[in-house]
Amino acid sequence: MVPRYQTPEMARLWSEESRYRTWALVEAYALEAWEALGQVPKGLAARLLKRLEEKPLDEGFAQRVAELEEITRHDLVAFTRALVEWTGDEEVGRYLHLGLTSSDVVDTAQNALLVQALDLILEELRGVQEELKRLALRYRRTPAIGRTHGVHAEPTSFGLRFLSFYAAFGRDEERLKRAQETIGVAMLSGSVGNYAHVPPEVEAHVARRLGLRPEPLSTQVVPRDRHGEVLAALALLGSNLERVAVELRHLQRTEVLEAQEPFREGQTGSSSMPHKKNPVGLENLTGMARLLRGYLGPALENIALWHERDISHSSVERVVLPDATTAAHYALRRLRGILAGLVVFEENLKRNLDLTRGLIYSQQVLNALIQKGLPRDKAYAIVQRNALRSWEEGRDFRAFLEEDPENPLKGEALKALFDPEPFLRHVDAIYARFGL
Amino acid sequence: MVPRYQTPEMARLWSEESRYRTWALVEAYALEAWEALGQVPKGLAARLLKRLEEKPLDEGFAQRVAELEEITRHDLVAFTRALVEWTGDEEVGRYLHLGLTSSDVVDTAQNALLVQALDLILEELRGVQEELKRLALRYRRTPAIGRTHGVHAEPTSFGLRFLSFYAAFGRDEERLKRAQETIGVAMLSGSVGNYAHVPPEVEAHVARRLGLRPEPLSTQVVPRDRHGEVLAALALLGSNLERVAVELRHLQRTEVLEAQEPFREGQTGSSSMPHKKNPVGLENLTGMARLLRGYLGPALENIALWHERDISHSSVERVVLPDATTAAHYALRRLRGILAGLVVFEENLKRNLDLTRGLIYSQQVLNALIQKGLPRDKAYAIVQRNALRSWEEGRDFRAFLEEDPENPLKGEALKALFDPEPFLRHVDAIYARFGL
Amino acid sequence: MVPRYQTPEMARLWSEESRYRTWALVEAYALEAWEALGQVPKGLAARLLKRLEEKPLDEGFAQRVAELEEITRHDLVAFTRALVEWTGDEEVGRYLHLGLTSSDVVDTAQNALLVQALDLILEELRGVQEELKRLALRYRRTPAIGRTHGVHAEPTSFGLRFLSFYAAFGRDEERLKRAQETIGVAMLSGSVGNYAHVPPEVEAHVARRLGLRPEPLSTQVVPRDRHGEVLAALALLGSNLERVAVELRHLQRTEVLEAQEPFREGQTGSSSMPHKKNPVGLENLTGMARLLRGYLGPALENIALWHERDISHSSVERVVLPDATTAAHYALRRLRGILAGLVVFEENLKRNLDLTRGLIYSQQVLNALIQKGLPRDKAYAIVQRNALRSWEEGRDFRAFLEEDPENPLKGEALKALFDPEPFLRHVDAIYARFGL
Amino acid sequence: MVPRYQTPEMARLWSEESRYRTWALVEAYALEAWEALGQVPKGLAARLLKRLEEKPLDEGFAQRVAELEEITRHDLVAFTRALVEWTGDEEVGRYLHLGLTSSDVVDTAQNALLVQALDLILEELRGVQEELKRLALRYRRTPAIGRTHGVHAEPTSFGLRFLSFYAAFGRDEERLKRAQETIGVAMLSGSVGNYAHVPPEVEAHVARRLGLRPEPLSTQVVPRDRHGEVLAALALLGSNLERVAVELRHLQRTEVLEAQEPFREGQTGSSSMPHKKNPVGLENLTGMARLLRGYLGPALENIALWHERDISHSSVERVVLPDATTAAHYALRRLRGILAGLVVFEENLKRNLDLTRGLIYSQQVLNALIQKGLPRDKAYAIVQRNALRSWEEGRDFRAFLEEDPENPLKGEALKALFDPEPFLRHVDAIYARFGL
Repeated sequence: MVPRYQTPEMARLWSEESRYRTWALVEAYALEAWEALGQVPKGLAARLLKRLEEKPLDEGFAQRVAELEEITRHDLVAFTRALVEWTGDEEVGRYLHLGLTSSDVVDTAQNALLVQALDLILEELRGVQEELKRLALRYRRTPAIGRTHGVHAEPTSFGLRFLSFYAAFGRDEERLKRAQETIGVAMLSGSVGNYAHVPPEVEAHVARRLGLRPEPLSTQVVPRDRHGEVLAALALLGSNLERVAVELRHLQRTEVLEAQEPFREGQTGSSSMPHKKNPVGLENLTGMARLLRGYLGPALENIALWHERDISHSSVERVVLPDATTAAHYALRRLRGILAGLVVFEENLKRNLDLTRGLIYSQQVLNALIQKGLPRDKAYAIVQRNALRSWEEGRDFRAFLEEDPENPLKGEALKALFDPEPFLRHVDAIYARFGL
Repeated sequence: MVPRYQTPEMARLWSEESRYRTWALVEAYALEAWEALGQVPKGLAARLLKRLEEKPLDEGFAQRVAELEEITRHDLVAFTRALVEWTGDEEVGRYLHLGLTSSDVVDTAQNALLVQALDLILEELRGVQEELKRLALRYRRTPAIGRTHGVHAEPTSFGLRFLSFYAAFGRDEERLKRAQETIGVAMLSGSVGNYAHVPPEVEAHVARRLGLRPEPLSTQVVPRDRHGEVLAALALLGSNLERVAVELRHLQRTEVLEAQEPFREGQTGSSSMPHKKNPVGLENLTGMARLLRGYLGPALENIALWHERDISHSSVERVVLPDATTAAHYALRRLRGILAGLVVFEENLKRNLDLTRGLIYSQQVLNALIQKGLPRDKAYAIVQRNALRSWEEGRDFRAFLEEDPENPLKGEALKALFDPEPFLRHVDAIYARFGL
Repeated sequence: MVPRYQTPEMARLWSEESRYRTWALVEAYALEAWEALGQVPKGLAARLLKRLEEKPLDEGFAQRVAELEEITRHDLVAFTRALVEWTGDEEVGRYLHLGLTSSDVVDTAQNALLVQALDLILEELRGVQEELKRLALRYRRTPAIGRTHGVHAEPTSFGLRFLSFYAAFGRDEERLKRAQETIGVAMLSGSVGNYAHVPPEVEAHVARRLGLRPEPLSTQVVPRDRHGEVLAALALLGSNLERVAVELRHLQRTEVLEAQEPFREGQTGSSSMPHKKNPVGLENLTGMARLLRGYLGPALENIALWHERDISHSSVERVVLPDATTAAHYALRRLRGILAGLVVFEENLKRNLDLTRGLIYSQQVLNALIQKGLPRDKAYAIVQRNALRSWEEGRDFRAFLEEDPENPLKGEALKALFDPEPFLRHVDAIYARFGL
Repeated sequence: MVPRYQTPEMARLWSEESRYRTWALVEAYALEAWEALGQVPKGLAARLLKRLEEKPLDEGFAQRVAELEEITRHDLVAFTRALVEWTGDEEVGRYLHLGLTSSDVVDTAQNALLVQALDLILEELRGVQEELKRLALRYRRTPAIGRTHGVHAEPTSFGLRFLSFYAAFGRDEERLKRAQETIGVAMLSGSVGNYAHVPPEVEAHVARRLGLRPEPLSTQVVPRDRHGEVLAALALLGSNLERVAVELRHLQRTEVLEAQEPFREGQTGSSSMPHKKNPVGLENLTGMARLLRGYLGPALENIALWHERDISHSSVERVVLPDATTAAHYALRRLRGILAGLVVFEENLKRNLDLTRGLIYSQQVLNALIQKGLPRDKAYAIVQRNALRSWEEGRDFRAFLEEDPENPLKGEALKALFDPEPFLRHVDAIYARFGL
């Protein structure tokens, strides 16, 4: 991911140092397991782990791996050689990587990193949820116009839209957690997945040490539908992020202006139009959503590997796993900031409610007419006729209804229908579904 | 979906008659709820439901809706008018659709159909799983060459690949069930989702009657990340279907020929090459997988609707919901048939195991050398050196090892390493993870 | 494609009868070529073609093919048998399909149909272009607010947006024509593409008769990047269609209401909100664009077929070729109708221009200040300061500028800057680039 | 793009220094145009250009822009401030960016870079084409088995597959050149695209200086279908790259082994299976193709921007433009190296030709029977019957035909049909189509 969209946490997580450290942990835990099985002298793993703690794998180490890879053309071989050099511990060198295949290390480590990346994303998502809950509660009883097809429909609670995003992200949270569980598997099963050179006990131990479960059936690699599920969860998250972004971008239009993303002191909206406050943060989120959808396709194409594995997935994953998790993390953090500083123009909410001169209460009138005993078609005709007139002549809908001789609803009874309050009567019931 | 890929069940499920019937059920159950609330005379719903049972909505009905839609340009309005005409029951006509918005009916019915479509898919998937289990058990102890990068790696159990597909489809089953739960919501919340004209009790009742849960927060429509999750689950299923197809297509290559999809009597493989048995069924599944991935993108783009809803998702869903569920159902059924008749050439499994003249046992030799006490690098050098010679000169690997003065492993000890059996020693442990 | 989105022309073009007819033409033209080469008795092709003219292949024929395919499991074999039966001409039967491979017929015919489908699309596109040109000319000098980020920017010509769509579709026209040329190839090169059983002269003749060019290198099939290019051109067209749809949907928002898609007599906007005129046609186009993007992925995945061909592309193409061309045709026709009846509210154009109380002229003021000799930063500060005040206090920007002691531009000189006309001064130059 | 897949040229092209330099050139050329129009003192542009040559924009400059962007939240504003500081030329500072909008600079510069990126890709593609031509010529008359559905079909020229890739990349070259022409536009048209503050002459001059054409109609930004076309061309290129990769991967299977990607001295195929030579480079290309397809979706979604522009495309393009062009460049370079060192095993080509014991000549026999006067169905029956027997009993097809009493073709006449040579008789005609 380009530096502009990297968060410090994700940059650290996906750094070479972090990857190598995780590889080294897998190797060390495998040694532990071999020690327990009596196949390797006791104490080697502890020495390696101590060493890793004392002298973390740094840029110099990464460079040494790169040099060795230039010669060997194999990243894991280069890594193990570099690790042996770096420990300077010949005995460790003799047993390191015993019985393992590269994928045992690489795939297991990658899953461990993905689980951590999803933790970061889930944490940021919870922050977004806090803001949405706050906004939902803050504007619970604030009437606002509801819009369908971009056209005014009926009054509703302004807070409800935040609650709807809260509900949507709640589903994302579920999906992300399940995806995290799906990807949370370790695998040390050898070159064709049958534990030919390493017994399942080693895998079980390494999994436990990394907080993962053993992959029940690997074929040199973890099956890639697991990764596909992660990317699908992120693409769905992205699409919900876009939903929020599109809503708020609409609300920030000059003609609507019910809300606005925060604008920092000193920030320049445009190099030539100083009055403009543009929802550039939200537009950025829309772009992030596109990226997140774009990363899913390659991940799905990665699933049908040849036989026990081919390595076509690897280049894809080197790009899309860091990029997609980083884009999601960045986008959530940015949204959190936008929600935290969101400006709401309550007077404009009121102005927009009145913009259609009462037409938004037409369904209310229709139902009242039907309840008065008119057949549906007739009631509908009365409402439609006067609504059209009001619209075309730019005068109050209610006034036309008053004048319509076929309309039995007049005066106070009619006036009472032109009120946003009744539209909020079930809002509490909806909030209650979310414990709010 | 083109008729060629329609299954009878899915064709029926997504037919206009079936849709209209489901719409009519939603309307009838809503009437029931209104009756219980005392807003509508008792007995109307029962009359409507009885009528629907006596005289199912047929092609003539669908045609009448089409005529009325030509006039009204609104499918639900056309439908309710046609339904009133068709019942010939004026009182029903008066209360039908009371307080409802089109989406209340359309979205709820669509979800009910999707739940059924997923039931069909899950049933077919279980059939596939039975076949895979059978094949996994049948070939559990049959040695076969494992391949990575398309190149011979090490021996493994031939049955294990079927078990790996079984495991993958097990995850699909989980994802499909969760997606089914996700989409299993009914919604009758009115034009902007706040129950302005219809209390939540109506929704609760309709949901219960359809075997669905109430949507906790709708905005005239059910949020579209639910549909996205369904399509994502289907795209993942498709990619696993492709994984099976690609594996079996590889096995059917002339040079490999370890398995073959069934070839029916009278079937013509090619109009000009009569000897050919082509894996056309499996290739078809590969294409189906591409379609299933293709349908996901539009479903994800459907999520960010404008405000309380726009209708851009509708045209997409009219196509992708039937097409994707039908493609999945068809592909599963076809795979089931292929697996049921799969021909396995056991002699070719043996032939291919021996194709590299023992090179596939190199890791076995390497590990034995290390266990004998050689340093890893040295052991590796011995193995690599002799393996390369064997490969280049086309003679047995073992013979070269025998001649290598630096190799301490000779005779019986060496010979014992050239045996597929040890590679199967943990196979039972793997099967046990699946209760097999 | 579902019937709702089929156009009569595309339904006909992609019908089974139309496909079979095109297959029969390929077979007949191949016979002609063989006759010219002296390999087949003279007159057979003419007899077959006459027969095809006298008695077109109908539903009965299609049914007979289906029956035979049930037995043979091979569509082309079934077709040739049915064709021989149907002609009742034994001599034709003896030579029909001589030297040909199924793909020779199927792929060539499919390309011929695709060329025709693209002709239909191009014709409809020209109709759209006529409407766009008309609207561009009609509103060439009509000032309207330009918006960036959804926020008012500066005045512009209302017609310019139609011209921008005209320009975009002009590029689509180029892409579609090139794609049509790319796909316009015939191929009769035998089972592995080397003309083993049919000399290149046959291909050349059939190509000429169908108005196609010979494929220079086929491998039993036409290379699939050609089809990919067609689908890419359609996806780009779809995305431009969406661009128009999104613009007009924005203009139809209640708060903006500068334009509105036509609303037919009798049409029902909503079953419960009679005042609403919703841009449902435009929203439908947005959905169509998503479908068109969705069809591209499978077509791109079709390109890497195995060796001389596998048939995985076939199921994909049976769906996406008719569906994508039909969706494009339908969408263009629908857009054409919308543009033909587009309602423009000129008074609202004016109202919206004044909505920001002069802030949209800020760049004009900024430039005038710089031209007056102020340093850019200082001029910017003056503009920004007063613009912000105007915005916050809801009073005219110009009034604040008048009061600002640091602003050297006052009175008439200042007033002259608050005029949309200068923004249109280069509009003619832009139109001239399109010969308008 | 991750460093592993960066080529030095693309890394340089997309570096911040390179972007800023291109921005600075746009600003300088705009000053030149203003000077020519007499709006700016003569000599400023020359001073700026000289300065840029003497002291290239370096990392320090990029850092200063970053600092200023932290304050201004606007990249272009930060850049112009930094540039003025860096020149230390107050007069330049006074006129720099006169009349321009950020997009004028950013979009024009981005297109200039894209044109250069496509030049790099086209150059690398020509290198690939040279290798393919060499291989096509080298193996022009070498018989090899052609395969359809992965199953042996008929003999063909081994060189023809390289020629087919050459033909495919020739189409890619055309598409890339057209895409390059499509994107080769400069735009300086102001905040809503109507040249309100900068006359078209400035745009024309800047375009000329950058080797671009003026964009005929921009709306603050260049229309994004142009970028979409570039990404579509790259996705198609990627899919053709995958086609080559998949073919060669198939040929490198242990059972087939007709070709092998070069394996460097010291390279380690696998950490545990020293005999393996894996097509990891080709598998990498398969992954790259997936990435290239993945980048297309977001670019297509970028097209429907809101009104005169929103900035949602920007984050997408910051990622996909460098990543997609870099992936394409890297993949082409890698393929070039693989083709240059490709190992072909001619003895295996021969072995595979004979693998089906003559069945691959069945069409030859069928045609000879028909030419002998047998009805097609009967001839087909003879061929099919004996072919099936040969297949099932593992004996020569020809021997069975000799024994078949209904077969009129025996002895020398029959033997002559079992020869790959006749299958190559039109190969020269195919090569001639490519001037070879």
